[in-house]
Amino acid sequence: MSYLDRIAECNTFDLRRYLPFDVADQRVGLVRKDFAALLGRYPRVFQVTGEHVRLAPQLSDFATRSAAVEPILRELAGQGHILGWREEPLAVTESFSAAPLMQIERAAANHFGVRTFGVHMNGFVRREDGLYMWTPRRSRNKPTYPGRLDNMVAGGQPIGKGLLENLIKECAEEANIPAAIARRAQPVGLISYCAEVPEGLQPDVEFCFDLELPEDFVPRNTDGEVEEFQLLPIARVAELVRDTQEFKPNCALVIIHFLLRHGLLPPEHPEYVELAQRLASPTLPGVPGELTSALV
Amino acid sequence: MSYLDRIAECNTFDLRRYLPFDVADQRVGLVRKDFAALLGRYPRVFQVTGEHVRLAPQLSDFATRSAAVEPILRELAGQGHILGWREEPLAVTESFSAAPLMQIERAAANHFGVRTFGVHMNGFVRREDGLYMWTPRRSRNKPTYPGRLDNMVAGGQPIGKGLLENLIKECAEEANIPAAIARRAQPVGLISYCAEVPEGLQPDVEFCFDLELPEDFVPRNTDGEVEEFQLLPIARVAELVRDTQEFKPNCALVIIHFLLRHGLLPPEHPEYVELAQRLASPTLPGVPGELTSALV
Repeated sequence: MSYLDRIAECNTFDLRRYLPFDVADQRVGLVRKDFAALLGRYPRVFQVTGEHVRLAPQLSDFATRSAAVEPILRELAGQGHILGWREEPLAVTESFSAAPLMQIERAAANHFGVRTFGVHMNGFVRREDGLYMWTPRRSRNKPTYPGRLDNMVAGGQPIGKGLLENLIKECAEEANIPAAIARRAQPVGLISYCAEVPEGLQPDVEFCFDLELPEDFVPRNTDGEVEEFQLLPIARVAELVRDTQEFKPNCALVIIHFLLRHGLLPPEHPEYVELAQRLASPTLPGVPGELTSALV
Repeated sequence: MSYLDRIAECNTFDLRRYLPFDVADQRVGLVRKDFAALLGRYPRVFQVTGEHVRLAPQLSDFATRSAAVEPILRELAGQGHILGWREEPLAVTESFSAAPLMQIERAAANHFGVRTFGVHMNGFVRREDGLYMWTPRRSRNKPTYPGRLDNMVAGGQPIGKGLLENLIKECAEEANIPAAIARRAQPVGLISYCAEVPEGLQPDVEFCFDLELPEDFVPRNTDGEVEEFQLLPIARVAELVRDTQEFKPNCALVIIHFLLRHGLLPPEHPEYVELAQRLASPTLPGVPGELTSALV
């Protein structure tokens, strides 16, 4: 097992099973062909050919598009084709900073292979003998990755909320970190990947934050999503990432990013160059270079 | 002008003008076709076809390969085909941590399009009103990028030397930083790119280091390669990177990497995602995915 294995695990898929998903002539996602066939039942909203899935062009603005798509997704959810509806709308965009073309329920995002965004924060403590990282174990009741290790705080990015604003909210819910402390979290870059999941494709960008915590701070989960917090020496965290699959896959990438930035992996490490080059892999489906390189 | 322009400037080339360069069945470089024609004059060492340039397979170890290639390169240098001979051997490898397949004079590296490696260090000072970065201006006598701004310390990686060892030596020569301080430099990742240069192709990996300096430290150049050092507020450095071409191109990338890691670019910046995804572009010529995606 190796650090690179963790990156590979987040980037395994076969794009030949997918069709591009276009909205307003912009390629915003990739739909697996079996789900595309379901969308083909709604030809006034989804134009499905052997080449692509296209949102009907007469749906010409954010509100009309979102309103036309939502009842169809609810119907598909009612038929069991979309599971775990959350009432959590996500922005569908060609890039993170672009105005959203439409919104879509989070539970359906991977069916359309649209890019998802989130925030992940490493909370650490500096002691005389080195860095320690607060490492939560996910609740056994979580629908995804129950019982796996996680970054201290993480959450998906809902539409219309600032990144830091979202992070501060998650800090309170997941670890009882007061806003005054959470606000000190420093943006430090991102990790990105494109993973195949049961629903389809998950091209994901996670904005990474570091928060150095006072030695006497003890996190406490308030939303039931965390089973326990451990404060682990960074060398132990690194081992768990490298040698096990204990961490939720994308959290392992956030930790590798941390290790590189903090000089905790020596540049002579045989995987160093490739790790640095692959941690922020292009994810936007539909940019030709990205599709091509992902296929090779 | 924008930060992304700086990345684009380091990644412009047309691979159709190049042939793969293989040593011991490993693809280690890319040779422009006009230089390949010159190498074709030495068929006992270079097997040149319309498809590739291949080092003769009977040259079966590091010493034999290096010894066979060197006199040819000296002859080509004597004929004016290779300029600026430095007597500085570089490792030719399939990856940084692999055993070198041969060594080659630095002045010829870009003719063969082999990956080059180096160290770049940002030296900064933390003041009450924020970070300041030591910014040297290259001497007007430098053969490359005379008079341009640079990272505080930088140097190519010669064969057989450790990265930190090389950095400490460069710290002394370029900025008179004592070894005891230089040793605190922290490895923080890397930037990589593939640039077209007059000689051919430069696929380059620069290991990045941060060194926080005491407020009273003043650098002094000892090898004549620096004209002056300025201590600039980080916002001014960022402006110079974004809005001008004052910095040597790869140094601009090292600074963007610094800005991202230190929270000096907000994640909402419209270029943030793409910057993070493109700062460490794959560079190894000959890995099919890399060639393909670079061509798109």
